[in-house]
Amino acid sequence: MSLLHLPHHDGSPLYVSDEAPGLGDTVTVRVRTSAADPVEAIWLRTTYDAEPVFYPTTSTADGHAVWWEAALPVHNPVTHYRFLLVRADGTQQWLTGAGTVDHDVPDGNDFRLAAFPSAPDWGRDAVVYQVFPDRFARSAAADEREVPDWALAAEWDDEVCFEGGDPRTPMQLYGGDLDGITEHLDHVEQVGADVVYTTPVFPGESNHRYNATTFTAVDPLLGGDEAYARLSAAVHARGWRILGDLTTNHTGDTHEWFLSAVDGVDDPHRSFYYFEEDGTYACWMGHGTLPKINHANHDVRHAMVEGPHSVVGRWLRPPYDVDGWRIDVANMTGRLADIDVAHEVARAVRATAAELREDPWVIGEHNHDATGDIDGDGWHGTMNYSGFSWPVWSWLRDPSSPARAFGRPVPVPRRDGATVVETLRAWQGTLGWRATASSWNILGSHDSARIRTVVGGDAAVHRVAAGLQFTLPGVPMLFAGDEIGLEGVNGEDSRRTMPWHRPDDWDRTTLAAYADLAQVRRAHVALRRGGLRWAHVDDDTIAFVREHPDGSALVVARRAAAPAFSLPLDPGRHVLGSEPGGADLTSSPDGVEVPATDGPRVDIWALD
Amino acid sequence: MSLLHLPHHDGSPLYVSDEAPGLGDTVTVRVRTSAADPVEAIWLRTTYDAEPVFYPTTSTADGHAVWWEAALPVHNPVTHYRFLLVRADGTQQWLTGAGTVDHDVPDGNDFRLAAFPSAPDWGRDAVVYQVFPDRFARSAAADEREVPDWALAAEWDDEVCFEGGDPRTPMQLYGGDLDGITEHLDHVEQVGADVVYTTPVFPGESNHRYNATTFTAVDPLLGGDEAYARLSAAVHARGWRILGDLTTNHTGDTHEWFLSAVDGVDDPHRSFYYFEEDGTYACWMGHGTLPKINHANHDVRHAMVEGPHSVVGRWLRPPYDVDGWRIDVANMTGRLADIDVAHEVARAVRATAAELREDPWVIGEHNHDATGDIDGDGWHGTMNYSGFSWPVWSWLRDPSSPARAFGRPVPVPRRDGATVVETLRAWQGTLGWRATASSWNILGSHDSARIRTVVGGDAAVHRVAAGLQFTLPGVPMLFAGDEIGLEGVNGEDSRRTMPWHRPDDWDRTTLAAYADLAQVRRAHVALRRGGLRWAHVDDDTIAFVREHPDGSALVVARRAAAPAFSLPLDPGRHVLGSEPGGADLTSSPDGVEVPATDGPRVDIWALD
Repeated sequence: MSLLHLPHHDGSPLYVSDEAPGLGDTVTVRVRTSAADPVEAIWLRTTYDAEPVFYPTTSTADGHAVWWEAALPVHNPVTHYRFLLVRADGTQQWLTGAGTVDHDVPDGNDFRLAAFPSAPDWGRDAVVYQVFPDRFARSAAADEREVPDWALAAEWDDEVCFEGGDPRTPMQLYGGDLDGITEHLDHVEQVGADVVYTTPVFPGESNHRYNATTFTAVDPLLGGDEAYARLSAAVHARGWRILGDLTTNHTGDTHEWFLSAVDGVDDPHRSFYYFEEDGTYACWMGHGTLPKINHANHDVRHAMVEGPHSVVGRWLRPPYDVDGWRIDVANMTGRLADIDVAHEVARAVRATAAELREDPWVIGEHNHDATGDIDGDGWHGTMNYSGFSWPVWSWLRDPSSPARAFGRPVPVPRRDGATVVETLRAWQGTLGWRATASSWNILGSHDSARIRTVVGGDAAVHRVAAGLQFTLPGVPMLFAGDEIGLEGVNGEDSRRTMPWHRPDDWDRTTLAAYADLAQVRRAHVALRRGGLRWAHVDDDTIAFVREHPDGSALVVARRAAAPAFSLPLDPGRHVLGSEPGGADLTSSPDGVEVPATDGPRVDIWALD
Repeated sequence: MSLLHLPHHDGSPLYVSDEAPGLGDTVTVRVRTSAADPVEAIWLRTTYDAEPVFYPTTSTADGHAVWWEAALPVHNPVTHYRFLLVRADGTQQWLTGAGTVDHDVPDGNDFRLAAFPSAPDWGRDAVVYQVFPDRFARSAAADEREVPDWALAAEWDDEVCFEGGDPRTPMQLYGGDLDGITEHLDHVEQVGADVVYTTPVFPGESNHRYNATTFTAVDPLLGGDEAYARLSAAVHARGWRILGDLTTNHTGDTHEWFLSAVDGVDDPHRSFYYFEEDGTYACWMGHGTLPKINHANHDVRHAMVEGPHSVVGRWLRPPYDVDGWRIDVANMTGRLADIDVAHEVARAVRATAAELREDPWVIGEHNHDATGDIDGDGWHGTMNYSGFSWPVWSWLRDPSSPARAFGRPVPVPRRDGATVVETLRAWQGTLGWRATASSWNILGSHDSARIRTVVGGDAAVHRVAAGLQFTLPGVPMLFAGDEIGLEGVNGEDSRRTMPWHRPDDWDRTTLAAYADLAQVRRAHVALRRGGLRWAHVDDDTIAFVREHPDGSALVVARRAAAPAFSLPLDPGRHVLGSEPGGADLTSSPDGVEVPATDGPRVDIWALD
């Protein structure tokens, strides 16, 4: 099914004159239609203080395309808009962020312009590499450290205990540390990443450290504050960036604040949590070890997220100099029953970061629908499980894979290309262009199965997934080990150690593919900032164009052997990457012919 | 296309054990599937402080149906939920408020339970009759009144000046008054209505009075405070209710508050509006005569909406005793650029009403998407143009009708039944069941073309529209004159006077149809409180079942001659109304046969 004839608009530079306007500015917005499409008029509709208002557009023919243009007043901080197309036969169609629709629809998929600064350029251009410190690498100093009482010392090649009920799961301590990361930055460079994001480095009585005992020191088991400063300096010395990981929703029940709070009902920290009269307290998903922070209380907001001396602020300053935060459980932070100050917390984190650093980046974890939390002055983006991971998984999943579900009680089923594209459209529609483009394209994380396991161990299909990760709108974020084909059936199992000492176990073909993808993405602005026009979809093929004034690219992903097809594009396109065997596109009577494939692969062609 | 086999859930009593639970309660929710549908498991998914959580369901077979049941914790004030269906072939499908969908979707169409009281029973059971006082009826006293300077006296049979640019449009004063309404309540009774809603009665220098000069007196041109008290008493004497109309977004520029504010920069009323340093001020859609109220200011909120002595409160008390309000421009109220206190205003209006009356009803005007404003503690419902009027118009519109668009620059196009049902589903999904069921099903208003004109003057098609108005979820609200076939190409033209003295111009067949519909609706709880299962749809037919534990009903609407079709229902159903020529349903091999029709009609059958 060819899709290039569809009317199109998105938030990229070809279609929007200013993606981060000021309130009160006027922005030019454009729609592209096919010259063969009998569109007679297009109206721009915007909501002005929630009242729909229409503006006419003017049109200009340009070869095979007609461009329609109107001036959009940015009246509200998040200004909604969409287009009404009227055709010669009297039919009408809406063009929304989720595509065209033949009947009237609510505003949930409206295009959006936010009168707030965008995520920083370095973030949107980044390739992010996620490290789970206990499992990445041990420095020599690790051998000298004593194993704390709560921990079970594990050898580097020990198997991870990953079954849910196993009490050893959070206690297995492999001893990876921050100097271990610093020592392996050459590997990160080899992958092509330039942002290092570590899961928490604060001490917690677990290997994952999401149950912090303090926010004012780095875990000595990781090398302490100095090791963190060394890692940050080494990252910055390469011109890279580093992101921290902070749980704003809860602390551990061994946190210094909580211990004070438990000890005294009059202790000022008591109000940092939600204590009942009887001494019970709200906690994360019923886990008493993870007491929930009461962000409706100003004192804890000041301690945690507001200003340079808050936890958020402290680590953004020298000598740690983190360039931003990934906020854990951002979706639940500040929300409890009839209390909802989630947006105030997000805004405060972002404001604190902006006060301390020139161009910070703040990503909120949300494993489902972050709409509203990320399209204004809240989080710059999210870990895009719903809008990226699950759709890609559902296209590439091996039905017999042992990979377990995350975020639902049953694994995602295998679905055809058209259904997957509909899913991607639905999420892009609700999140909005800028929030989608500033969010993380992840194929998995320390909380989910590994992509390699999802695709049933098929390296070629794994590379198709990586190809989509690096070419669809969003910032690729890979969990360390994905690049060499590590496996894992769930989040805990995915936290296997990096097999530095077993080089023969590395899938170097896949490693090279990641590096190629990172290089191609870096070299071609269209893959980082271009728009997204769907070009062709069938069961086994998803093809799209990333368009940018400085050059566009065609991406064709096949999950299996698939026949050739034509696209109405000018001929003479040269291949950019990434699988061996790629060739320039050849002419066909309809434009160009995309060649048949004998197996899974992704190809990328430059378009101009 | 038969639809009864589809998995179903809605917010009605068959599917939800408590539609207005308390926060922290647990509600039983049920899904119905067809016994022939190979569903293996259904999971209830709810968001708990924005985190998706799944619960298993248990199933019970019941003849042709399987019922799946789970306990839903009402954890948040507006608790979202939906269902994940897993079938024997491994496919998965979501059941949301907009129906089933084969891929993952955001939360915008989740089912919702609100931990707030419902709209009052009398409101949900009502038939509302809208009166535009200047055009409804003149009492004898009207002849004695002087015509004010701003007005142009018009004879009752004069044509309305309705073209947009005509300065006479708001000035034509026909002299209808409140005692005129009181004198014609027998007519309202004949229609079958039991709630009288009048557009504003406060003085304003216009015939529509949406530009109030004060909120503390009823316009002497309408008979003043006493006439309003008489009308209210007469309405209540019949066991009916009366609703006022209040513009919370703006006043007229001749309002006493505004005149004080203009006169002095230190006047306390200055902060009631949005004045700039240079004396300019914010106003409705650029009309300087309609200065916008600054609800971010506490003083004006106190004067306008908070407490018994506010404007909202004053008229709810004796001797006026209005039973609630229709709030004009509710969508824009409290919203201006980066200010948004709309929900606070809605909550205050509702709280004030609840403080003064046992069971008040508050409807907010919103001509587009009121999602979020009406599913919690804001407005009970909206004037449902988007979710009712436009879809019905688009199914029944005569393409050559001179009816003009409202809320869009071009008239809605004629669309087939399936597209219209998709539209209704989309709106029901976003507004939620309870908000939809508590909103007004309108075929038009004083702001839009008349339905009779929309359908090209075809009385039979007009009655199909009325049939949908009285049988789809929502409360029928008709603009006085619809019942006798008045016409109008736009809102102003629709404000034609009631031709009391020209009885031959009345369409008494249509009047009788309205009365029948009102009676059938009143007699059958399914039509007022029942669920909505779509039964059959094709280009010219829309059929649905309204289900209730105390008896269900089948509604079949045809916009044109249409063939017979079968439905898998038990035979022996008897006809309830409303068009002549209806008959009981006959058996067919598949269940019952709905007979062919030779033209537009709506039939209603009792199902048990």
